[in-house]
Amino acid sequence: MNNVMAYAAFDPKKPLGPFTISRREPGINDVQIDIKYCGVCHSDVHQARDEWGGSIFPMVPGHEIVGVVSKTGHAVKKYKVGDKVGVGCLVDSCRTCSSCKEGLEQYCENGSVPTYNGLEKDGKTPTFGGYSTHIIVHEDFVLKIPENLPLDAAAPLLCAGITTYSPLKHWKAGPGKKIGVIGLGGLGHMAVKIGHALGAEITVFSHSERKREDAKRFGARNFVVTKNQNEMEALTNTLDLIINTVSVELDWNLYLRLLKRDSSMVILGVPSKAPEVSAFGLIAGRKSLAGSLIGGIAETQEMLDFCGRNNIVCDIERVAIQDINTAYERMVKGDVRYRFVIDIESLK
Amino acid sequence: MNNVMAYAAFDPKKPLGPFTISRREPGINDVQIDIKYCGVCHSDVHQARDEWGGSIFPMVPGHEIVGVVSKTGHAVKKYKVGDKVGVGCLVDSCRTCSSCKEGLEQYCENGSVPTYNGLEKDGKTPTFGGYSTHIIVHEDFVLKIPENLPLDAAAPLLCAGITTYSPLKHWKAGPGKKIGVIGLGGLGHMAVKIGHALGAEITVFSHSERKREDAKRFGARNFVVTKNQNEMEALTNTLDLIINTVSVELDWNLYLRLLKRDSSMVILGVPSKAPEVSAFGLIAGRKSLAGSLIGGIAETQEMLDFCGRNNIVCDIERVAIQDINTAYERMVKGDVRYRFVIDIESLK
Repeated sequence: MNNVMAYAAFDPKKPLGPFTISRREPGINDVQIDIKYCGVCHSDVHQARDEWGGSIFPMVPGHEIVGVVSKTGHAVKKYKVGDKVGVGCLVDSCRTCSSCKEGLEQYCENGSVPTYNGLEKDGKTPTFGGYSTHIIVHEDFVLKIPENLPLDAAAPLLCAGITTYSPLKHWKAGPGKKIGVIGLGGLGHMAVKIGHALGAEITVFSHSERKREDAKRFGARNFVVTKNQNEMEALTNTLDLIINTVSVELDWNLYLRLLKRDSSMVILGVPSKAPEVSAFGLIAGRKSLAGSLIGGIAETQEMLDFCGRNNIVCDIERVAIQDINTAYERMVKGDVRYRFVIDIESLK
Repeated sequence: MNNVMAYAAFDPKKPLGPFTISRREPGINDVQIDIKYCGVCHSDVHQARDEWGGSIFPMVPGHEIVGVVSKTGHAVKKYKVGDKVGVGCLVDSCRTCSSCKEGLEQYCENGSVPTYNGLEKDGKTPTFGGYSTHIIVHEDFVLKIPENLPLDAAAPLLCAGITTYSPLKHWKAGPGKKIGVIGLGGLGHMAVKIGHALGAEITVFSHSERKREDAKRFGARNFVVTKNQNEMEALTNTLDLIINTVSVELDWNLYLRLLKRDSSMVILGVPSKAPEVSAFGLIAGRKSLAGSLIGGIAETQEMLDFCGRNNIVCDIERVAIQDINTAYERMVKGDVRYRFVIDIESLK
């Protein structure tokens, strides 16, 4: 379909602006989605500004997409016109490697296809994300949004939700487990809500008092201002898991000390400086520093269903697409509680 | 018992020399051991030279101790005079914390008692290690040496053996698993022998060709000289576990890339420079950097029995105690295949 209205980054240094893209006509397995809302992820900024290198311009960011099915290919089985659906960080993968076969498409050994700033499996066609009015996606990479969730606040579940749900499940968050969450931003506040709903006892680590009340409201049992050395010290060897949602420089060893034996600290975002860890800190308690990347498609659906049952959505601030550059500036300064979501109506 | 002959470090800068220590008379649960051989571990040098800080002088190093029981307290049940026994890195622990209760005395939450360079549970009496003619140890921290193993070559199993066996078992080395071992020294050659006996396919990473034949003889399937970039590249995403036995600076990310998804690189020694790892390298395959410390008492016995069944001992070079300072110099230069073992007869 031609003339899909979008907003694009044209250059790492320039503001985003209006852009028109064309998308393929829906194939037999494709779902065409009228996009209603799109969350604004920190990685949108990193990629639009080419901070990780290798960005493809013009770039239409956005991988926290929700909308309504407006057309389906004739072989589509899972969705029908009018369904409320979502698209996350991936729109395709090889489907044949061992990761894909295990439902871990995010670790596809032949390279999964990102929703934007990537190339389709033909190796040529750039992918364009959710800062646009429509998207066409193979039904296998489309998610069902639970009926009871508001579409706008559900949008960030597609990245912030699954990125925190997946490690919480993988490292067995649940009743009786004490879990630390570093940072209370887009990812962090989802980690708190989901971790709490899973039954774990959550401790939030933040650099200031500012978000204490919010943390409690999201379900955190404890809130520690990280410069309070006594409170940090008191947590030595008490945590079963630490989820690090911030990408600033950290004293990694300070946190490793808070883990119990045989426990892990998991990195979700790429910090500006490579983690430097004390080997002794790992050895002395058989501890691990690990990483985790979003989640697979089946697990993303599982997360959405879990959020539906538990009435979990993001705390959001709705913005018009015309305000995206201001939103980026504010997000970089941490001035958002807790996720911007673009009202795609503003694009039309 | 007074007048136990020993060799001690008196000062971080001075050579080791003769020293006389006194040890307690065997208590009701104690075993008195006539030491026959004591392995020389790299950590003996680090501690004798106070390279980790906090060393207690005079220090009698040695925690790879084998000998024969010469006396037992009247409540001792497991050992009798004449038994071939060993003592590893620990001589006591709190026995009440959750780690001790799980048989993981090396992670005792109240601080286990190291065989040397530590203090007994009274907090005052220094512990003295195996560079001595006798040692008195609570029977719970004494190990049985399988009858078929030569005592001298079995000695290093008490540290080098268990330090590699424990992570190999914990991270499930076995048939069908591909395991990398970095470095072919005292620990590395044990990792190869034990890993091979467990049924895993072992790849040794070494900085030169020198030890290729030895690696094969110990059971390694593959041997990679690390500066050979093509061979390193070819191993990308192929290994189920990497055991790092060296304590020199490493390109950690080079090795993390060789791990399969959900796999771990495990550090056994404290490197001179803190590991710096790429967060992306961990995230992209849900990989971990972990540490492991020796092993518990029950697991050490399990390891010894396993080595007995599989006829595994260390490759050693026997030395007289009078040559210990030269042995230290040679060990620091990597000039030993693969472990020095002191013949304690030379002390008498």
